[in-house]
Parts: sequence; structure tokens; C-alpha cells
Amino acid sequence: MKPGYHDIYTRYRDNITRGVLKPGDKVPAIRVLAEELKVARKTVETAYAILTGEGYLVSQGARGTRVNPDLSLPAVKPPADEQVTGTLPASLISQRERAGYLRPGIPALDGFPYKKWLLLAGQATRSMRQEEMLNPPVLGWYPLRQAIARYLNISRGLSCSAEQVLITSGYSGSLRLILDTLASRSDKVVFEDPGYFMGQQLLKRIVPRLHTVPVDRAGFDTDYLLRNHHDARFAIVTPSHQSPLAVTLSLPRKQQLLDWATQNEAWIVEDDYDGEFHYTRKVLPSLKSLDRHDRVIFMGTFSKTIMPSLRLGYVVMPASTVEAFTDCADITTSGQPVLTQKILTRFLDEGHFFRHLKKMRALYQRRRDWMIAALREVYGDLFFTEQNDGGMHIVAFLTKGSRDREVAQCWQQQELQVNALSEWYRGSGKRYGLVMGYNNVRTYQEALDLLERPKRQTLALLS
Amino acid sequence: MKPGYHDIYTRYRDNITRGVLKPGDKVPAIRVLAEELKVARKTVETAYAILTGEGYLVSQGARGTRVNPDLSLPAVKPPADEQVTGTLPASLISQRERAGYLRPGIPALDGFPYKKWLLLAGQATRSMRQEEMLNPPVLGWYPLRQAIARYLNISRGLSCSAEQVLITSGYSGSLRLILDTLASRSDKVVFEDPGYFMGQQLLKRIVPRLHTVPVDRAGFDTDYLLRNHHDARFAIVTPSHQSPLAVTLSLPRKQQLLDWATQNEAWIVEDDYDGEFHYTRKVLPSLKSLDRHDRVIFMGTFSKTIMPSLRLGYVVMPASTVEAFTDCADITTSGQPVLTQKILTRFLDEGHFFRHLKKMRALYQRRRDWMIAALREVYGDLFFTEQNDGGMHIVAFLTKGSRDREVAQCWQQQELQVNALSEWYRGSGKRYGLVMGYNNVRTYQEALDLLERPKRQTLALLS
Repeated sequence: MKPGYHDIYTRYRDNITRGVLKPGDKVPAIRVLAEELKVARKTVETAYAILTGEGYLVSQGARGTRVNPDLSLPAVKPPADEQVTGTLPASLISQRERAGYLRPGIPALDGFPYKKWLLLAGQATRSMRQEEMLNPPVLGWYPLRQAIARYLNISRGLSCSAEQVLITSGYSGSLRLILDTLASRSDKVVFEDPGYFMGQQLLKRIVPRLHTVPVDRAGFDTDYLLRNHHDARFAIVTPSHQSPLAVTLSLPRKQQLLDWATQNEAWIVEDDYDGEFHYTRKVLPSLKSLDRHDRVIFMGTFSKTIMPSLRLGYVVMPASTVEAFTDCADITTSGQPVLTQKILTRFLDEGHFFRHLKKMRALYQRRRDWMIAALREVYGDLFFTEQNDGGMHIVAFLTKGSRDREVAQCWQQQELQVNALSEWYRGSGKRYGLVMGYNNVRTYQEALDLLERPKRQTLALLS
Repeated sequence: MKPGYHDIYTRYRDNITRGVLKPGDKVPAIRVLAEELKVARKTVETAYAILTGEGYLVSQGARGTRVNPDLSLPAVKPPADEQVTGTLPASLISQRERAGYLRPGIPALDGFPYKKWLLLAGQATRSMRQEEMLNPPVLGWYPLRQAIARYLNISRGLSCSAEQVLITSGYSGSLRLILDTLASRSDKVVFEDPGYFMGQQLLKRIVPRLHTVPVDRAGFDTDYLLRNHHDARFAIVTPSHQSPLAVTLSLPRKQQLLDWATQNEAWIVEDDYDGEFHYTRKVLPSLKSLDRHDRVIFMGTFSKTIMPSLRLGYVVMPASTVEAFTDCADITTSGQPVLTQKILTRFLDEGHFFRHLKKMRALYQRRRDWMIAALREVYGDLFFTEQNDGGMHIVAFLTKGSRDREVAQCWQQQELQVNALSEWYRGSGKRYGLVMGYNNVRTYQEALDLLERPKRQTLALLS
């Protein structure tokens, strides 16, 4: 049987940790090894990428790839990342660090304007001043807060000032800071069911009174909220493009939700994780843009629009909460690195962000259509997708049956890092399907090839 | 509903009048904004035409359209940083962002090898690879974990593997992750009294059962611990150089503390915030280096040795806890930015860190001696200092009286950002004095000049 990328990865890692391959040793070129092992170049490429990412190999361009000369291994121990997946419960979490295809929520790596970014990074680095070595401003580097306020006012229909924008390390940083600042342990918090898996994990850990509200085709079920959790103090929602069902919260429900929050002095946390990506019509007005009584806390991230490894996101604080947020952030966080904030500011201020979003919208729409078409081509009506106008993933619902976990598992064995929809549910009313990202599928043919991989087993499971 | 030209017009007008858009700011090109808002160019054109007509915008042809630079508007909101100090209680917290002299814990800004750092930053940026755009490894970028493990093994006498090193965002990130991972809400936690002010603030917020243990001239009073808080599950200590008293934990007490933890399966958190800086003898062995039963969780930061705005620190996880830390970090954090980790890795791997520490030790010792001499020169015996061999601040104890808060206040009015020692105490047995940093005092004369500033009022208060 042909070795997969993981076999190659483990083989090299073990040889390096066991000292068979010594620091500085040259390893075969991708092409050569691929021929030797009779596997696709992409397979070797992936294995080398992980080994390089973990510091086992270093690519020296024309001079080829070598075992990292700086590598010094104290003892024969499994490297961290392997340990991670090893020690974690078999959950979606560990997937974040596993290589593969179709993983939801990863921006198109081939679509990012590297050259431009590197240029700005160089400029930002050189422009570093002494006072910028001190503690970063707790609420964020002011020019970045201004740039984000401008972006939100113009593109997302918010009306907020730079003073309301707080820079965080991204999703978990934002969510945690919001609850640290405004929630007491006795407060009831409601979350969507199904809801973003990482969010669920975090909330289960930090919120004693966590409840869920079902999501139907019109989004978060506000009637259910009013009937069963009228007394909640926080509702954490993804109105523009529900995660994972990708439906959009209907306008009447948006209004209902806002009224509920106003009457009960509750807080709505609007997680706008991919609100920038809508294709069939104009970018949706955010829930926050309809918020007349300042009950909505808006949170966004640059992980989806720029890159996850940047670790920058933001919260728009209702004016009445700025003082509380400031106080809490000052104690529980210490601000974000100034360098990354400066690079991002230039990217925004010089208009590259607008242009990049525009390019990505076109690209993602195309790739999404390919994926949907390829899905039908390869699997006929075993899966179906529902009309929705945006986002960074699709849900391929099972036409019959409930074996989405088994299907997901066998797709994952083929390096297709899709999620089983039912795993995102906590309560009843489960639906079954695969949550898949398509942003890095470069051609229709690639979509077909990838989907062909697990075909036999999938048919066996679903027929 | 698509915005009409009038919506766009009002949006801009409001943002300009509210100061979100500032005179001279570039606004998106008509084409770009039309695309962004999914409206006809004509719509944007019309809006821009009116805004230009009314003098809000000026078109500069090829150089694009800007907010009229000559526009004079009623005063806009103060920038964030002022607001921060404004909205915060008059505590030590807000000082972190206030400019001034003698602030404790700030490395010498004139001693940092910028050129080298910028060079490495440029290299790290250029070497950024696609896979490094993905989610950063939750435990940290592996080569950095290796570099830190090497440093700790060589310089701090620890014996740990890279797999035990976890990269965090610094002090609060480390402390919080440790408690998130290992503490339950019913666990008793003990902290030093006096103790690091920011740490107290954080712990008061997140630990329900927080107690303090007095610090005397031999450091953390282990007898008191055994008598009164034998049942604690966590002891958070600064053994190398107590914060703020700057004493070193005596060897017998170190042993006593370790025995207590072993017998009670309690955890000792060793905060090695400035353990690198010792002058009169070689760098002290850390408490962790004496830890035979793996009860010590070691945490360090690069805020003091490199720069606070880098936001990178680390935790050395006892082997038995790696799994728990991995699991918790995966849910509550999302790793640190890869770029800053790569820059730091190069700084460590290429030996610059060692050289820098060596240089700083000599520099800080000189500046510390200047500060102590200047203090005696200007204030005679109104203050006295105690012999201690390192760190980044000194404590100038009041020879008589307890008015350190008033003294600190009048020094702060002269931009001398010293802290009143008594504010760092929670319980009884208070001592009185000023906690001051000296790392940025460039000459003996500068030390004298700074100390002269508040002389008159200080004499009035203390005589």
C-alpha cells in the first residue's frame, strides 16, 4: 500500500529523533522521493511541510532541504504536536494542527498577497520606535483601532468610534474577555445548537450556567429563547452566517432578539467570524448595525480574512462598557504584540484589505461552486446542500441516515479534514452531514480528485 | 437593502464629524467602495460628489480622494490611552501606560540591540511559509520551545525538554493558564505579601480562596505557610528576587517549600520574572532546579529581558501535567503569533540573547549603583536601601513614618513613576518606601537631576 503523507512524516521524524538522520543531513528532493515511493508529489510536499513547520527540516532553496542543523534533541521523546494529538480526546480540537484538505475556516493560502504583506512587515519592523517596546496599550494600538473603526463604519454599517474598538488575540481571547468583563458566575448564557465547536468547548469550561437554543432555517430560534431562556443574560450568536449551518438570521428574529436584550438588559454577542464573505448579494448589515440601544457586543477576527497565525481579532464595546472592559483587560490580558498590530494597520490603511476581500469573495464563490458541483458529480444525491449566500464552508447534508461521524472518520483517513455536523450539536434535533471548507481547492479537477478518495467507503456507509 | 447615495453620504459625513475619519485620511476609490458595498459606481460617485461639494472630501486626482486636510472640526474624543488612565481607578495599573521615569520592570531601552533585532525580524518575515499562516501550534512554535529548553538547561539549571516548554503571551497569560489547567475553584491559593501588584489584581479576580503569606528578610515565610495554610494547593512565589522586596528565598526555606509541596501534592508556581539579573554573584539556581519531585511549575517572560511589547513568555510544565496543559491551552488559548515566535527563536539561537543579557547585567549593575548613590546624595538618610544582589528595581525604604503613598504621589506629579511599597501589601506588617526602576537612568547626573525634582515636597512630607 502506498504510504500517505503521515507515514512519510513519521518515518522522517523517527529517524531524526533516533539519530539515524543527523542535523545537517540532506534529504531527497520532493520530486525524487515522490518517484521513489511512487506517490504524488503533493503527498511528499505535505510531509515535508509539517516536518519543516515543526523544525525538523529546513529548506535551503536551491541548496535543497536538510535536517535542521540547529536541532538538538535532549532525549528521544515524541515531538510536541504528535503528543498533542496523542493526548487529546479524539475530538475536532486536535484537527486544528493536523494537515490536510477541506478543513473549514482556513483562508485560501494561495490567494494571500504575500509580497505585499512582507513589504509592510518590513516597513513596520523598521519603523519600530523605542516607546513601542513598552507595554502595548491594553485596548490595542490606537492607529489599528482607528483603522478597524473606519472599516466597520464603512463596510459593516456599524457606527462606532475607535475608542470602542478593543484589540484581542482572536476568537477565544474576545469571547473570554467579554465574559470576564460582564458576566457573573450566576449568569445564564445561551449558545447556538448546533454551534461553533471550539466555542462550545471554551464555554463549557468557563460558564457554569450554559444552555443552548436550537437553530432552524431562519437561524437562532428566538421564540424558543423567549419561551425557555427569557432570563438569560448573554446570547452568543452568529447572525450573518450561522456556524455551522450557514443560515442567516431573519430580520424579524433579529428585531425580536434586540427587543429581548433591551427589555431584559441582556447582552447579545455577535460573532461576525466570516461576515465579510457574502457572494450572492451585498455584504449583510450586521446585527450591531440595527442595535439602537447598545446591547450588542460585536466581535470579529482577522484569522479568516488574513491568516490564523496572526492572532488578532477585535471587540466593539458598547459605550457604557468601555470602562469595565478597560479595567478587566488591564488585569487579565496585557495587550497584543505591537509589531503584528502595526503590520495589520498598514494593510488596512493602504487599502490592501479592501482589495484582498474583494479578490477573495470572487475566488471563494468560484471554489464553493466547484465544490458543490463536484459533490453532486461524485456522490449524486447522497448529499445535498442548502442555498445560502456566503461564508467559508458548506454543509453537505446526508440525504438519508445518521452515520456522519463514520463518514467523517473515513474522509479524515484520506486527509480530508471535514467535520461531522452531528458532533456540533449538544441537544436533540440533530441533523447529519459534513462540514467542509473549500477555500483551498484550487481547481474543479482537484475538488473531484479529493472527493473521489473516500468514495468507495462512503458509498458502502451510505448506500 | 443596498445603501443609496444618501446613506453613503451620511455615513461619511457622520464619521468625519465624529472624528472617526480624520482630515487627510485617504478614503477608498469609488470603484473599490462600490465593489465593497455592492452598489453601482454612480451611487458612490454621487455621494462623493456631494461630500466634495460640501468640503468634506477633496479629490487629488491620481493621488486619490481624501478627507479635506483643511477641515477644522470641533475637538474630537481623546485618544484611547488618555481615556484608559481617565477611566481607571487611580491605581498602579494605569501607570503601565503612563510615560515617565524610574518605572519598575522596564528594560533599558537604550541598551537593546535594535539593528540586530530588525535584521532578524526581516529574515523571519521573509522566511514565513504558507503553512505558518495556519493556526499556530497551541504549545508554541517547536523551534522556539527547543531554544528556550536549551537556554533553561544551560543558564537556569533546569533540566527540561522542549516538550515541557509552553509558549504564552507573558505573565498574566502564564499565570492564568496554570490555574485554568490545574486549579479548581475550591483550591486554596497563597501569594506573597507584599506581592507583585498586577499579580494580586489578577488573582483577586480569578481565585475565590486567595490567601497571603508574609515575606521577611529570608523571603517567603514557609513557617507561616505550614502553620496557617498547610492545606493550600498552590503557592505562587518569586524566590530568586522577591517582588517587590528583592530578597532571595533562603536555601533552607526553599527545601521546606519543596517538601511541603511534595507531601501535600501541592503546586509551587515559580515566577522567575527577573531571575536573569544578578550582579554580585553568578545567576542563582532556580527553585525548579532543586525540585526532585516535579512539583514546581516554572514561568518566565521575555518582557524584562527583551521587550514588554513582544508579549511572549513561557511555562515549564511538570511532565505529569503536559497532557492537562495541552488540553486546556487548546481550548482557552489559540497559541501565539508565529512571526514574533520566529524572530525570538533566531535571537536565541544565534546567541544574541546571551550577549544581550551579559551586557545588561553590567549596565544594570552600574545604573543601580548610581541610583543608590544619588538617593543618598539627594536625600541623605531619609531613605535607606537593603543589600540585595540583583533584579530590575530597588526599594527605597522610609527611615521613619508611613507616608509612602503621599511621597509616591508627589514623585508621580514630577513624572517619576515610582510605586508606594505599602500599596503592594494586603495584610498587616506593612513596610513603607518607594519601589523604583533604574534601568533607564543613563548617567549618575541624570539620577541626581531626577531625584532633585520632588525634593522640596518630599522633605516637607518626611521631615
